[in-house]
Amino acid sequence: MSIWEPELAGRLHHETIESRLLRGNPLGDPHERPLWVYTPPGYDDSDRRYPAIYVIQGYTGHVSMWANRTPYRQTFPETADAVFADEGVPPCILVYVDAWTAYGGSQFVDSPGTGAYHSYLCDEVVPWVDANYRTIAHRDSRGISGKSSGGFGAMITPMLRPDLFGAFATHAGDSLYEYCYLGEFAKAARALRDFGHDIQKWWTDFRSRTAFTNQHDQTLLMALGCSAAFSADPDGTPRLPFDPRSGQLIPELWDRWLAWDPVRMIDRYADALRSLNAVWIDAGTRDEWFLDLGAEAFRAGLGRIGVPDERIRFELFDAGHGGIDYRYPLATRWLAERLSV
Amino acid sequence: MSIWEPELAGRLHHETIESRLLRGNPLGDPHERPLWVYTPPGYDDSDRRYPAIYVIQGYTGHVSMWANRTPYRQTFPETADAVFADEGVPPCILVYVDAWTAYGGSQFVDSPGTGAYHSYLCDEVVPWVDANYRTIAHRDSRGISGKSSGGFGAMITPMLRPDLFGAFATHAGDSLYEYCYLGEFAKAARALRDFGHDIQKWWTDFRSRTAFTNQHDQTLLMALGCSAAFSADPDGTPRLPFDPRSGQLIPELWDRWLAWDPVRMIDRYADALRSLNAVWIDAGTRDEWFLDLGAEAFRAGLGRIGVPDERIRFELFDAGHGGIDYRYPLATRWLAERLSV
Amino acid sequence: MSIWEPELAGRLHHETIESRLLRGNPLGDPHERPLWVYTPPGYDDSDRRYPAIYVIQGYTGHVSMWANRTPYRQTFPETADAVFADEGVPPCILVYVDAWTAYGGSQFVDSPGTGAYHSYLCDEVVPWVDANYRTIAHRDSRGISGKSSGGFGAMITPMLRPDLFGAFATHAGDSLYEYCYLGEFAKAARALRDFGHDIQKWWTDFRSRTAFTNQHDQTLLMALGCSAAFSADPDGTPRLPFDPRSGQLIPELWDRWLAWDPVRMIDRYADALRSLNAVWIDAGTRDEWFLDLGAEAFRAGLGRIGVPDERIRFELFDAGHGGIDYRYPLATRWLAERLSV
Amino acid sequence: MSIWEPELAGRLHHETIESRLLRGNPLGDPHERPLWVYTPPGYDDSDRRYPAIYVIQGYTGHVSMWANRTPYRQTFPETADAVFADEGVPPCILVYVDAWTAYGGSQFVDSPGTGAYHSYLCDEVVPWVDANYRTIAHRDSRGISGKSSGGFGAMITPMLRPDLFGAFATHAGDSLYEYCYLGEFAKAARALRDFGHDIQKWWTDFRSRTAFTNQHDQTLLMALGCSAAFSADPDGTPRLPFDPRSGQLIPELWDRWLAWDPVRMIDRYADALRSLNAVWIDAGTRDEWFLDLGAEAFRAGLGRIGVPDERIRFELFDAGHGGIDYRYPLATRWLAERLSV
Repeated sequence: MSIWEPELAGRLHHETIESRLLRGNPLGDPHERPLWVYTPPGYDDSDRRYPAIYVIQGYTGHVSMWANRTPYRQTFPETADAVFADEGVPPCILVYVDAWTAYGGSQFVDSPGTGAYHSYLCDEVVPWVDANYRTIAHRDSRGISGKSSGGFGAMITPMLRPDLFGAFATHAGDSLYEYCYLGEFAKAARALRDFGHDIQKWWTDFRSRTAFTNQHDQTLLMALGCSAAFSADPDGTPRLPFDPRSGQLIPELWDRWLAWDPVRMIDRYADALRSLNAVWIDAGTRDEWFLDLGAEAFRAGLGRIGVPDERIRFELFDAGHGGIDYRYPLATRWLAERLSV
Repeated sequence: MSIWEPELAGRLHHETIESRLLRGNPLGDPHERPLWVYTPPGYDDSDRRYPAIYVIQGYTGHVSMWANRTPYRQTFPETADAVFADEGVPPCILVYVDAWTAYGGSQFVDSPGTGAYHSYLCDEVVPWVDANYRTIAHRDSRGISGKSSGGFGAMITPMLRPDLFGAFATHAGDSLYEYCYLGEFAKAARALRDFGHDIQKWWTDFRSRTAFTNQHDQTLLMALGCSAAFSADPDGTPRLPFDPRSGQLIPELWDRWLAWDPVRMIDRYADALRSLNAVWIDAGTRDEWFLDLGAEAFRAGLGRIGVPDERIRFELFDAGHGGIDYRYPLATRWLAERLSV
Repeated sequence: MSIWEPELAGRLHHETIESRLLRGNPLGDPHERPLWVYTPPGYDDSDRRYPAIYVIQGYTGHVSMWANRTPYRQTFPETADAVFADEGVPPCILVYVDAWTAYGGSQFVDSPGTGAYHSYLCDEVVPWVDANYRTIAHRDSRGISGKSSGGFGAMITPMLRPDLFGAFATHAGDSLYEYCYLGEFAKAARALRDFGHDIQKWWTDFRSRTAFTNQHDQTLLMALGCSAAFSADPDGTPRLPFDPRSGQLIPELWDRWLAWDPVRMIDRYADALRSLNAVWIDAGTRDEWFLDLGAEAFRAGLGRIGVPDERIRFELFDAGHGGIDYRYPLATRWLAERLSV
Repeated sequence: MSIWEPELAGRLHHETIESRLLRGNPLGDPHERPLWVYTPPGYDDSDRRYPAIYVIQGYTGHVSMWANRTPYRQTFPETADAVFADEGVPPCILVYVDAWTAYGGSQFVDSPGTGAYHSYLCDEVVPWVDANYRTIAHRDSRGISGKSSGGFGAMITPMLRPDLFGAFATHAGDSLYEYCYLGEFAKAARALRDFGHDIQKWWTDFRSRTAFTNQHDQTLLMALGCSAAFSADPDGTPRLPFDPRSGQLIPELWDRWLAWDPVRMIDRYADALRSLNAVWIDAGTRDEWFLDLGAEAFRAGLGRIGVPDERIRFELFDAGHGGIDYRYPLATRWLAERLSV
């Protein structure tokens, strides 16, 4: 297979979906979105129906980046294709969803700060795919996976909508917020010293120049974007959950974030979680956001509420947060084997 | 002045105090403690009485370390002496207190895990000094200062005992625990993977070999020692406030820590704080434990409860957490000028 | 312009070139290579001839990666297109050359360890482009640019072939080898402890598993690949220029590397350098390989041999080594204005 | 043994030596120097003679720092005393030599930039000790040991004066200069951007304020001080061996440094090295100055010139450059067992 333009065994369809729910979203982001749908080998020559796995991205990801190449590796659309090129694996449809926003992400939730991305995913993308591709339109045949913020989305979406999703895979998904976020808040508070302790001044600056030329851009962008997702005012204004000078938490806002911590959601969504057929959890032992600890805590929580061990695949890898796409096809195969056909 | 053996203008007395309160302490640490008392120039030739400033140390410090030399700098006993060699500064007695424990520190609190170090300081050292040196034995003439854990001690001791202390100086004092401690917990949880998730196994290992040859020793020692100070069981067993595998906080234990967060103590001890004559707060903008944020939050809290600005000296320095002894004599002089003579 | 699929004002042609010189190369890499040729707006509607700028990549880059997207930024083919969408800029043809090898790069030199990549570029790609596109086939109308190893290639190629290239731009190009390489050798020697001090054992391991899951892979890959480029035996065996256990330099091999240090090549190629019409040099003040120092040294060397200041553009940016593609269109425009039309 | 004031089995004598050779030294440093001499248990009750081990310090060390305490550890004078408290170890005299200068060190060489510290050590300190203590005044009964710059001194002094020293121990001694120094030069060149590329401007600044409050002080101090030691002009002016803007090496000055690289001195001093009875070499596998590689190279060089393996003790420890005093008593004991009694 050529390193430059590998051919797929299946087919990747570049679609566009027109969202009604994203129309008029608060950030003025497009309501027409790219949607990539992968059909496995054999799809075009049969009329069978297939399970579907929805794939979502980490913070600052948009769907075109799935084509990004790194040396000595293939893209995930290619490694996933290789999974389904193996006849021993139950073939699936893969759906690459775009949830980009001007803040770099949506966390796959509905928020007045960014838009109705959760509903867009569940009530628009899923029906559209079921209508346009030969899926098995049943929650036991539908999974979702993602990394980092996408892993978070993959955890919470089935909790909120067990009617739609019966399985998920999270790779280094955001969780145990005191470890993954508080360190970022501390750095953000420091970085805001250069901006009069005002994140909006930074945002204006950020948009006026080349992105990521300030060393703190990544930290401040995520602080702003997640505030838009988790703690926006009703009028859409994102509110940082901490004092911008001291970093001191603002309890009523921080609690809104914590309400979205998968580890803390487990008890509220215990029935949904117990209904799942398959849960893949991984992280790197050196994850820069301590998401290995989040993975451990989430895994322990599933055990506590009674999710049977045999439905769970848990592994910590000797790795950091970046460059972990080699684990995606492992989870894809594992999910494919557990979705009803 | 020689770089090797500078002479002091005043005198440093190496005393030993026999503590009744530390006798039989749970760690078997000595109840006889060294105590260094500095008398300023002129002390021996007069019968006047002097204000006193108590000086306490950071984690893993014991009183002998005040003699440690770093290149191109003098020790604090020397730079403090230089302050009082200036006739324009009101002369003071300085009291260097030892609160070492087998865990490297006591946090200057009373705890079944370590011993009654708070009471030892307040009810034994202070009276002993007043009895043996010509101090002005009044809270308006008594201050306390320290760095890091010593800064913490300098903050809380006057809150608890405003009858004894009327002023303090904190250099990068522990505060805003979610920032200074949680990152350490995360690292500790990871480090415990090598010890079966059991801090006692690490402790046994630590004591069996050269200290600090494991890169995680510092983190684990502080986790253990502060647990002994803040969240020990009644029988003295230190209990980590987090799950040793996932790092997940154990609320009832973590709340015991938070009850000792100076930022969170402000409202409970508002009267005491408002009674103080002088509060020096500093930290480095790059403090590795984010104690600059703690300093900001503590300063803001003092303002909120109505401590007048003119009683407070606040400054962030371009510095990290280490090597900041150059700020101690600045605070010493500032306190000296504000203690009643 | 859409963030997902921007349209170009000009056109990007995905070509394939069949190389005679790379056929049978020692690593078994393809001798058919992708070649991307960009034609500016108006090209298709005229018969005029255009200057050409050749664009080469850093280590581990291959031509498909020019399509990689990063958030909030456009790809270089897009930002370069935006340069030429401005009618005030003299339009140019851009040629994106692929020089990938199994070791991740070729350093754009001819070597028994990798192949004849220098000759391939100069004697095959250039003539092919001149034959297939309406270029002005003259050295005063031909430039070359690149980053990192590509910046190195952009420096040395006009030195070796001033008959072909009259201008270049180097962004953080490899130079002043004692600073950019020796630190890597030290790390490599340490990393080889896990492989019996044998880089071939690492290479076997590297090829047997997912790339870059060992933290030292990048360092060892570059050590091996540059050894293949600079210090291969006549039979193609790459020889590390240092003892694999102690890191001690092997003078006769290290001298072969130094013979390729642009800073050390200046005097040997002074006439070629003085013949150039335009030289852009930049680097980041925090470049992880100290290429800011290399840039300074190279700039100073040009001055020393008498290259006039007005032909040189030199700037250090507040940046590291990564994420510096925002500087490429600046250099592209500057070169375009200096190539003869 | 008390953690605060342990008692020694032997005795530590705080002496002062008046140096004729250091009188009028170029930096105006004292020519009266402290000298600590340790006599082992039994010394006072006998008239026997003892071997002597000279102990020298790392950069920025002066003799008073041997008393510095770190938590959970004893000072080297104490751990060395513990070695000789063991009756199974041949008792030795230890001599703690001071070679401090205004630049933080002397590298134990004679230089117009700092003074005649090598001669001071060999021609003044050694005779003085032999005259004032009951040493066995023979090279086979005299060793020298040190860490970092002191390790360097311990390596070169017996090479230069095999008539005086017959054994040495180097802990992370400076060697393989391309790895231990070049990275520092690169950082120094960058740091000098804030000082108009002029080390003297930095030096003036450094002396006008609290030392080490600029993050680059350590790097610049060592660059200046080693230049004073290795590449001073005849009038004493230290000359950096690199261009202060680009970092480019100045060959005639850098060669003067390399002439002092222990690894490169091996062949010139092969006879001296072959005459030694015992050589201890250690370093940490993570040494921040890559002195583990220097240790490997030095060890390999000894083998190459024919120093028998049985005279050499070589070990790499899992450690960095700091906090390695736990290895000093190991070497002290090993040397003690190999010095003639």
